[in-house]
Amino acid sequence: MRSRIHSNLLGIQNTPTISAGKKFQLDDLIEAQQFDREILADIFEVAREMEKVEKNSPGSQVLKGYLMATLFYEPSTRTRLSFESAMKRLGGEVLTTENAREFSSAAKGETLEDTIRTVEGYSDIIVMRHFESGAAKRAAATTEVPVINAGDGPGQHPTQALLDVYTIDREIGKLDGIKVALVGDLANGRTVRSLAYLLAKYQDVKIYLVSPDVVKMKDDIKDYLTSKGVEWEESADLMEVASKCDVLYQTRIQRERFGERIDLYEEARGKYIVDHDVLNAMQDHAVVMHPLPRLDEITVDVDADPRAAYFRQAKNGLYIRMALLKLLLVGW
Amino acid sequence: MRSRIHSNLLGIQNTPTISAGKKFQLDDLIEAQQFDREILADIFEVAREMEKVEKNSPGSQVLKGYLMATLFYEPSTRTRLSFESAMKRLGGEVLTTENAREFSSAAKGETLEDTIRTVEGYSDIIVMRHFESGAAKRAAATTEVPVINAGDGPGQHPTQALLDVYTIDREIGKLDGIKVALVGDLANGRTVRSLAYLLAKYQDVKIYLVSPDVVKMKDDIKDYLTSKGVEWEESADLMEVASKCDVLYQTRIQRERFGERIDLYEEARGKYIVDHDVLNAMQDHAVVMHPLPRLDEITVDVDADPRAAYFRQAKNGLYIRMALLKLLLVGW
Amino acid sequence: MRSRIHSNLLGIQNTPTISAGKKFQLDDLIEAQQFDREILADIFEVAREMEKVEKNSPGSQVLKGYLMATLFYEPSTRTRLSFESAMKRLGGEVLTTENAREFSSAAKGETLEDTIRTVEGYSDIIVMRHFESGAAKRAAATTEVPVINAGDGPGQHPTQALLDVYTIDREIGKLDGIKVALVGDLANGRTVRSLAYLLAKYQDVKIYLVSPDVVKMKDDIKDYLTSKGVEWEESADLMEVASKCDVLYQTRIQRERFGERIDLYEEARGKYIVDHDVLNAMQDHAVVMHPLPRLDEITVDVDADPRAAYFRQAKNGLYIRMALLKLLLVGW
Repeated sequence: MRSRIHSNLLGIQNTPTISAGKKFQLDDLIEAQQFDREILADIFEVAREMEKVEKNSPGSQVLKGYLMATLFYEPSTRTRLSFESAMKRLGGEVLTTENAREFSSAAKGETLEDTIRTVEGYSDIIVMRHFESGAAKRAAATTEVPVINAGDGPGQHPTQALLDVYTIDREIGKLDGIKVALVGDLANGRTVRSLAYLLAKYQDVKIYLVSPDVVKMKDDIKDYLTSKGVEWEESADLMEVASKCDVLYQTRIQRERFGERIDLYEEARGKYIVDHDVLNAMQDHAVVMHPLPRLDEITVDVDADPRAAYFRQAKNGLYIRMALLKLLLVGW
Repeated sequence: MRSRIHSNLLGIQNTPTISAGKKFQLDDLIEAQQFDREILADIFEVAREMEKVEKNSPGSQVLKGYLMATLFYEPSTRTRLSFESAMKRLGGEVLTTENAREFSSAAKGETLEDTIRTVEGYSDIIVMRHFESGAAKRAAATTEVPVINAGDGPGQHPTQALLDVYTIDREIGKLDGIKVALVGDLANGRTVRSLAYLLAKYQDVKIYLVSPDVVKMKDDIKDYLTSKGVEWEESADLMEVASKCDVLYQTRIQRERFGERIDLYEEARGKYIVDHDVLNAMQDHAVVMHPLPRLDEITVDVDADPRAAYFRQAKNGLYIRMALLKLLLVGW
Repeated sequence: MRSRIHSNLLGIQNTPTISAGKKFQLDDLIEAQQFDREILADIFEVAREMEKVEKNSPGSQVLKGYLMATLFYEPSTRTRLSFESAMKRLGGEVLTTENAREFSSAAKGETLEDTIRTVEGYSDIIVMRHFESGAAKRAAATTEVPVINAGDGPGQHPTQALLDVYTIDREIGKLDGIKVALVGDLANGRTVRSLAYLLAKYQDVKIYLVSPDVVKMKDDIKDYLTSKGVEWEESADLMEVASKCDVLYQTRIQRERFGERIDLYEEARGKYIVDHDVLNAMQDHAVVMHPLPRLDEITVDVDADPRAAYFRQAKNGLYIRMALLKLLLVGW
């Protein structure tokens, strides 16, 4: 939709949001920052309802007759299946493009705008993954049909950010006053950057940054946190941070960021592993999160501990996407 | 289905058609020429009904329980999504093969006939795209299940031809007496060739042919038009033609036809662009059409003009395919 | 599911099976050998019911609200479409991954177990094809959701084995006392190996083995048959075997097994062709079967003979898979 609501990534201080009244319908989902904390609370309330949708319950047909197009210009099986499952759990239908970049008219030189104008004729909502930052915003500006950004290159992946915050709320029971350790690749991880932005909407948040030197959090996020009054500190001591935080958010060191420097990759990768010792240092109520996929940055023996929240976190992605599809298609 | 109705591309003069009574069921859709103008009018009447199918309206469940297999031996995301949307808008279900050539048993040497005999066991209708001319006819001769040709290489793409004629009828309000300019790659464009064949079924049609010398319309079509009493003329003056025609049908110059001769491609490509000046020369009731995808043969500033009909044309493809699926599966 | 029922391929003599009472629900389908003949009979009874499921009949909605994930790490269009058709014929829905190996998180190094833990959150049953023997068993040990093995590399392809036995029962009317000729690539064909294991569950079975020397049946199967009291003999005379057997099960010689030795492949390939002469030697009640795809190991002129059962066999795959999906999701 020609959006009334989404913000500019570079002008976050002036983010417009939609009215947070109880009755509302979202237009598009382009950036996590487009929402204020009241809207987030409302979305989370709908997501909680979605946890109760069962086969053949009335809720399971709320999107009957609606058609979602998943337009993926780069593959992401996990995200695609999560959206398609969400749509089908609510009785809706799906048109799939697993590799729009290679297969579609894009290969013949068609613009994104023309593709969107065609696909909007076939569907009621478009879920788009693209390799270019800003692609989702361009799509939303082109069509009256709601657009969900399922990741646009180095840009945003707002449903991931929402499910992360929802998971913290579900696991810890609060967002104000939360202590979150962000661990691993903080320079390139779009996930931790978005999460930092969203956490800044809450009161008395403390963020610990734990990462190898080559992939430290960039200054723009640190400055943003400071400007919002969020306390943060960098640390090299994972055990100490683990003993203090409510949430330990681990991420994968991405090999593809290191090019030829395999040596640097190997060094960075082995530095902060969440294993049984780290778990032992953590508080009883604290949890380990991870956006998945993981390699060995969380050892497998952690999985059985009830504080290992990452598979519940993946499942929460389903509820968040169900909530968003409902809010975008039929409203509150 | 072992077809009673489809014609031979080389023996068009003797095309058999099905009875044009009000109650009928189509067997297969192989070639645009298989229909006479009465059948076309009936199909268009059903397509008009399809424009009114809404979510949860009775019409939206007319194909409930039916299963369509999309068997695409070459990728065409646009055409595939259009058919799948059509099927799902009517309550039907879909089995998808996005790249049958690479993935299927065809890679192990199975014949098309054997593949069809297997797929007919899984579905109620087969929509097939193939790289070989005549493949759809071979498929239809193999199976009792209806087959729709969604393009067979240099051969036919009959649903495109039908939606083009439907769009002319919808936009201009008539087909007899229509003046149509075919512009661009007339030598290789399967679309304009099929459209010329179909237009020959109507009275007092005038066709203008405007193309770079290297991609002029071939003699077989010109001879066919002459034999059918269709007036046609070639012109190098796009502005003059634009001022006279009811429909300006622009097409893309296909780079892949020029091999190493990029120079010839670039020269041909820039020759006849539809821009604001061309639009200004056109009559108020006239429209610009294009099968899409377009590159720059229609400039983007034309899009906002109400006479730019190409995105409505793409949407009409949905209604035509809904109509055909209904007529092939449950009849009139 | 953490399975109570599946057996170890190397410890077949002690295969545990589930209780064969009339009321039961299967947990997973990993290996053909996991079933005893009573369970097989029950599955076949449900498959017979499935032959009667029509559009809009009550049976056609038995899996409404259920979601199947097809997770294919190697492509197999035929098997995938068969499962997806089965699910949709029963009113269920499908999430598809046509090429999980290339597209999924597996490319980033995620373990199969982690992928399964994510996908189980999106779906009610997982149909998995994998390139590694034992992958399905690992998946089933990871998740509470039922897993169906749709082929795991050189390992098992149990739904193929079940549909083969079902077809023999349907075509010949019995399994005890049956005479089956296995022809072609008996060394590498996973199909004939599984079939041999299953046939050993029946009384007075006689198996003829007819194959080129380079692809003879391996000793493990022969020893197994002997240990189970199944009579078998090797023969080089296809005509004589054809005159004696109830079922002639032909298979494709797989070129990819011969590497550079195209000469050996060509020699093996042409040796035992089922043509009209072989058909003439066969008894009136006997049938020709083939797992498909075929090349020229059965000549096309055989297709029209009523004893050519291979396309009916493919269709039986649909009924068997419908039965299994029902038994795994909602029970007897």
